[in-house]
Amino acid sequence: MQDHSSLTPATAREMIRNNELIKPTSGVANGFTQANLAVLPKELAFEFLLFSQRNPKSCPILDVVEPGEYKPKIVAPEADLRTDIPKYRIYQHGKLIEEKTDVKDLWDENMVGFLIGCSFTFENALLNNGVPIRHREENCNVPMYKTNVQCVKAGRFEGPMVVSMRPMPEEHVVRAVQVTSRFPSVHGAPIHIGNPESIGIQDIHSPDFGDSVTIREGEVPVFWACGVTPQAVAMHVKPELMISHAPGHMFITDLRDEEFGVL
Amino acid sequence: MQDHSSLTPATAREMIRNNELIKPTSGVANGFTQANLAVLPKELAFEFLLFSQRNPKSCPILDVVEPGEYKPKIVAPEADLRTDIPKYRIYQHGKLIEEKTDVKDLWDENMVGFLIGCSFTFENALLNNGVPIRHREENCNVPMYKTNVQCVKAGRFEGPMVVSMRPMPEEHVVRAVQVTSRFPSVHGAPIHIGNPESIGIQDIHSPDFGDSVTIREGEVPVFWACGVTPQAVAMHVKPELMISHAPGHMFITDLRDEEFGVL
Repeated sequence: MQDHSSLTPATAREMIRNNELIKPTSGVANGFTQANLAVLPKELAFEFLLFSQRNPKSCPILDVVEPGEYKPKIVAPEADLRTDIPKYRIYQHGKLIEEKTDVKDLWDENMVGFLIGCSFTFENALLNNGVPIRHREENCNVPMYKTNVQCVKAGRFEGPMVVSMRPMPEEHVVRAVQVTSRFPSVHGAPIHIGNPESIGIQDIHSPDFGDSVTIREGEVPVFWACGVTPQAVAMHVKPELMISHAPGHMFITDLRDEEFGVL
Repeated sequence: MQDHSSLTPATAREMIRNNELIKPTSGVANGFTQANLAVLPKELAFEFLLFSQRNPKSCPILDVVEPGEYKPKIVAPEADLRTDIPKYRIYQHGKLIEEKTDVKDLWDENMVGFLIGCSFTFENALLNNGVPIRHREENCNVPMYKTNVQCVKAGRFEGPMVVSMRPMPEEHVVRAVQVTSRFPSVHGAPIHIGNPESIGIQDIHSPDFGDSVTIREGEVPVFWACGVTPQAVAMHVKPELMISHAPGHMFITDLRDEEFGVL
């Protein structure tokens, strides 16, 4: 397998644009921040932006591409959001109808693109600080759960927060809070530490999305707001058209993870 | 003079609502966060919210009140933004036409209210950390300057960043950066330390707004993004109607300053 970790973001995006790299982007252009994509009709744009402003841990916005535009001026001014993601998903009225490798035909002046921070960034920071990440060790998806914590409503957008969970030995918990607090643009500090039932999770071994991971004796589950939240909330509104990245197939920005650290 | 520093936010707002407290709010309900107000027609709301998202240091949003609403659910759910500010300013097509103590007649379902973080919060944090604040010592307004730093454009909203300046002895500069970095919701870390000319300020003793303050031998000027920026940028768009607080006459929220600290 070819190693894509040392590609520049521009080269990686060019390969993706030319359909030479149709695979999950984890580990591609290592050290550069990756982002979730949500594209919505402009009639929903204010409410969705407001939802993100009110729920910054679930929906941390990295860039917004205005109606008729497709270049994310802040995070990658030379990129094209219509072609530079390996795989897109197309939803009509909340139903997945198609996966495609470009969406040029669907992206018109009625659509607004949102790039949303992704947990890859804070996971790299955790690893760099010696905090182990179980689902990476077990080579599976992070476990994700619906909670009983309600997001703050904005217009038509409302619903429960979805969280991701990373179990860790007690001695790492303080450092995990500190490290991720530095990165509010990519979900920030945990929303809960410890007892899953306190946030409405009945069975920690049966995640609603992703995979179950091993929790060892004495380990503490730590929960972060998850980027699945805004997607779930948006689907609930059943927009006429919505475009997203396919899971794991993210947009690669020109900015390094560390540039999102607030201190 | 009556001391209003120990009022609760609810009592202070009630007095303001009844026109029993028509004066600048500095020092009223001490320890509780105060906010700038900008009310714009909903046709501009997405672009203004996007402007704030792209320029969080100049325009840190604390709450947004949706069309037809006037209660800021996040920062003061029992308040009424149409009456609970001591003095409002009404602008038509970018021109100040009137000052009023309530705006019930103007606030209809076409208007969207934005509450924007204010430097009072971080100034209290600086004082609590032993960093002196010259314009408070000299009992005048903070000096503010137009810079050559352009805000990131969003739709019709664009223009230069306006900054406030606080001079301080060199030994306080590091702590000032640390303390204010904790408060991204109220302008956050400085945008510049030292030479005013580097950001296009020709004469530090001639501020564009506010008052000139003494800069002593060996002191360093430290510059923060200022809440005048979004107001100046919005005025430039010349909206049919725009409502703001009168300078110094702020909205008092139910949240304590420390609740906005990110760590």
